[in-house]
Amino acid sequence: MNKIQTLNEKTVEEKLKEHEVQNLDLISIRELVHIVNELEEECGIKFIRMEMGVPGLSPHPIGIEAEIRAIKEGFTSKYPMIDGIKDLKLESSRFLKLFLNTEIEPEYCIPTVGSMQGSFAAFLTVCRKNPEQNKVLFIAPGFPVQRAQLNVLGIESKWFDIFQYRGDKLEDKLEELLSPGDIAAIVYSTPNNPTWICLSDHELKIIAKVTKKYNVTVIEDLAYFGMDFRKDYSKPGQAPYPPSITSYSDDYILLLSSSKIFSYAGQRIAFMAVSPKLFKQRFPNLRKYFTSDIFGKALVYSALYTLSAGTSHSAQYAFTALLKAVNDGEFNFLKPLKEYAQRAATAKKIFTDNGFYILYDKDEDCEVGHGFYFTISYPSLNSAELMEALLAVGISAVSLTIAGSDLYKGLRACVSQIHKDDMPELEARLKKFKEKH
Amino acid sequence: MNKIQTLNEKTVEEKLKEHEVQNLDLISIRELVHIVNELEEECGIKFIRMEMGVPGLSPHPIGIEAEIRAIKEGFTSKYPMIDGIKDLKLESSRFLKLFLNTEIEPEYCIPTVGSMQGSFAAFLTVCRKNPEQNKVLFIAPGFPVQRAQLNVLGIESKWFDIFQYRGDKLEDKLEELLSPGDIAAIVYSTPNNPTWICLSDHELKIIAKVTKKYNVTVIEDLAYFGMDFRKDYSKPGQAPYPPSITSYSDDYILLLSSSKIFSYAGQRIAFMAVSPKLFKQRFPNLRKYFTSDIFGKALVYSALYTLSAGTSHSAQYAFTALLKAVNDGEFNFLKPLKEYAQRAATAKKIFTDNGFYILYDKDEDCEVGHGFYFTISYPSLNSAELMEALLAVGISAVSLTIAGSDLYKGLRACVSQIHKDDMPELEARLKKFKEKH
Repeated sequence: MNKIQTLNEKTVEEKLKEHEVQNLDLISIRELVHIVNELEEECGIKFIRMEMGVPGLSPHPIGIEAEIRAIKEGFTSKYPMIDGIKDLKLESSRFLKLFLNTEIEPEYCIPTVGSMQGSFAAFLTVCRKNPEQNKVLFIAPGFPVQRAQLNVLGIESKWFDIFQYRGDKLEDKLEELLSPGDIAAIVYSTPNNPTWICLSDHELKIIAKVTKKYNVTVIEDLAYFGMDFRKDYSKPGQAPYPPSITSYSDDYILLLSSSKIFSYAGQRIAFMAVSPKLFKQRFPNLRKYFTSDIFGKALVYSALYTLSAGTSHSAQYAFTALLKAVNDGEFNFLKPLKEYAQRAATAKKIFTDNGFYILYDKDEDCEVGHGFYFTISYPSLNSAELMEALLAVGISAVSLTIAGSDLYKGLRACVSQIHKDDMPELEARLKKFKEKH
Repeated sequence: MNKIQTLNEKTVEEKLKEHEVQNLDLISIRELVHIVNELEEECGIKFIRMEMGVPGLSPHPIGIEAEIRAIKEGFTSKYPMIDGIKDLKLESSRFLKLFLNTEIEPEYCIPTVGSMQGSFAAFLTVCRKNPEQNKVLFIAPGFPVQRAQLNVLGIESKWFDIFQYRGDKLEDKLEELLSPGDIAAIVYSTPNNPTWICLSDHELKIIAKVTKKYNVTVIEDLAYFGMDFRKDYSKPGQAPYPPSITSYSDDYILLLSSSKIFSYAGQRIAFMAVSPKLFKQRFPNLRKYFTSDIFGKALVYSALYTLSAGTSHSAQYAFTALLKAVNDGEFNFLKPLKEYAQRAATAKKIFTDNGFYILYDKDEDCEVGHGFYFTISYPSLNSAELMEALLAVGISAVSLTIAGSDLYKGLRACVSQIHKDDMPELEARLKKFKEKH
C-alpha cells in the first residue's frame, strides 16, 4: 500500500488547520514532531525527518554496563548527593582539563538532569545576583527552549542575530546591548544549535572583554562539544582545543550534556561547571531566594536541590564511566560522531544541487563545518512557506525564526535521523520540490 | 579505638560554631547530615541517625529488572516523551483507580523527576492561573523543601500549624486564610511529613469545600501513600481506601513518589496526576509564561519540558513495572513497609519511657499511627536545645521549626535508618540523656 500520492500541499494545509497552526514559523519542535507523526500515519509515508535533534547513534557499551552495575549494586534506593557522586565530579574536572585545557576543580562540576536542568538552574540563580541585572541576552540563533525557560520563569530576555555581527563587529553590538547594565548573563552554544557556526577565539575574547566590563556571566552551552570536525579535538591532553570562553574569562558557567556526545539523551544526564571565581562569589541579593549568598552554594543547594533533589544515581555512574574512558584515552568519543559530518556533507550537497543554499554558511572567513545541523534557504520562499512546501514532499525541518533568526528565510535541518540509505529518497523529493518552486 | 568519650556537649558546641550555625532550629536537613557525618568521623562514634527521611529498605527486584531491561533495549539513547511513556501513564491511572478508587485517565498522569520536580512544576504553573492568586498556603508542619521551592521562585507562601485546628476547627481557619483571595493552592502531605498525622475524610471534605469556594487548587503529596498502617490499604480494588482529596474535589494535583513506597529514591522518579477538570481548564494569564492557556498543557509542555526535557527513560520503565505488579496484585507494596511501623513502635516506647512525649500525637480523637516519622518533645527543653542535647549523646533528629511548627519544642525522628539491633543502644543513650536533663 503506497499512499504517497495522498501527501500534497492540500493535505499539509488541512493538517495545519486541524492543529490551529496560524504561523508555521512559530511552531515548537515538539509540536511539529507531533504533526509529522500524524501525517506519516495518515498518508502512509515515511518522512525524511530533519526537525528534531535526537541522537541517531547507539551509546557506547561502557556507559550501559556501568549503569547496569550501579543498579545491581543497589543505588536505585539511595538518594544521590545533590552535588553529585565523587567520581563524576572528578571525571568531569579531568575532562575539562584534558579536552579544554581548563582547570576547574571537581567541587565546581555538578551533575544535572540534562543540560535543560543546568540552564534552568543557571538562569534561576544568575538573574538574582543583582536586582538591576535581571535579563538574559541570547546570541541568536539559539536553542528556543532556553528562551522558553526564561519565559516560564518570568525573566525577560533579549537577543540578537549574530549573522551580521561576526568578528570585530561583535564588540560594538555587545557594547550596545550590555552597556545599559540590565543583563545578568549572555548565552550561546558553540558549535551552535541551530546553525552549526562556531565562535572563534577572537570572538570569544571580545565576549570575555565586554562581559567583564559589565559583570555579565557567560553561559556556554557545549552540547555538541568537539563536534566541529574541521579540526581534530579528540586527543586527551593534546592541542588543538576547541575555542571556549574558559580561556578568556573567569565568570562563566559551562553546560556539558551527554545527550549528543555520548548519545545518552534518554537518561537526562549532563554536568555543569562553574568558574571557581563565580562559584565562590557572594551576592547579598541571593539571600532573598536561596539559603546562601555564595553563588555556587545557592546554585547547588537551593536551585538544583529544589528542582529535583539530585540527578538519577545510575545515570551518574554511566556518565562517569563514559567520561573516564574518554579521559583515559580508551574511547575516542568523537570518532563515531563523525558519521553526522558525513551525512551532513552528503545532504548539504543534495540540497544545494537542488537550488537551496546554506544560510549561515561562514565562521568569519571559513566555511562552516559539517555536523549535526545545517541551515537551508530557498530563494523564492520565506521560512514558513519553505517549511510548508517541504512538508508537502515529505521532508520536515524547523524554522530558524523560533531560534531568533532575523532573516525569516531559513530552516534548521538535522542529520541525526537520516541514514546513508535515505539520501537517494531525499534527492528524489528535493527534485520534485524544485520542479514546483 | 573507642573515642566515644570525646563526643559531648562541648564537641557539639564547637562543631556548630565551626559551621557558623547560629540557630539549630533553622538548620536544613542536608546541612545537619553533613555536620553529623563530620562528628561521626571525628569522634569515631556511629550516631543513631534519625534526621533524614531516606528509604531504609531494598527495592523489589521487579523494578530493578525492568530498568536493566530498558537500558539493554537501548532506551538510554532516546529522548523520553515529555508526558511519559504510555505504559507508565496507564499503570499510574490504574493505581489511582485500584488504590484510591479514583478515575484519572492516563493522559492526566505524568512522570516527574521525583515529586520534588512535581511540586516545583505545580507551583510554577498554579501560581500563574490568575494574577491575583499569587501565594501558596501550606498546612504545617510540612516538608520544608517545598517552601524553599517557592522561595527560589520568588513566590510568597503562608502557612499555619494544624495542631490547634484539627477537625471542625479547620473550616474557620481555612476560611480566614483563603477569603482574601490571594491563595492559588493549598499544600499538605498525608501521611504527613514530619508528624505522621493523617487528615481524616471529615477534614478533607472541609478542605474541598473551602478551596472550591475560593478557586484554590489542592496539592496533595502522597509520598507515603498507604503507609498509615492503622488500616490495611494494600488490597487492589478493595476498600478501605486512604482518605484523599480526590473523593471530594475536582481541582487538585496529586504527587506520588516512588522514593518511599518502592524504596526507589536514587532514580528520581514519581508521577503527578492532575484532576481532569483542572487539566483542561483555560486560564488566559498562563499565556504570559507558557505556550498554552490550558492548565495541563502549560504544566506538561512548558513547565515540565523546560525543567528537564522529561524523566529518565529507564526509571520510567522501573516505575511502570513496580506499579503494574502492585496493580495486578502480584506485589503487596505495603507489606515490607510495615517494618517502619514496627521500628517506630519500639523507638517511640523507648523515647516515652525516658521522659519524652509524642508532640503531634492525635488524628482528631485517634492515636497517630506508627510509621516513617514521629515527633518527640522533652518537657524542659525547646527544640534547638533538645536537638543539641541529643547530638551530644549521639542521636540526630531535625527541628520541627523548619517544617513550620508553631510549638518550638519538637523534633522529627525518622526510623528508616535505625534497625532492630540499634534499639538497645538508643535506649542506653536516652538513659544517659535523661540523667543529664
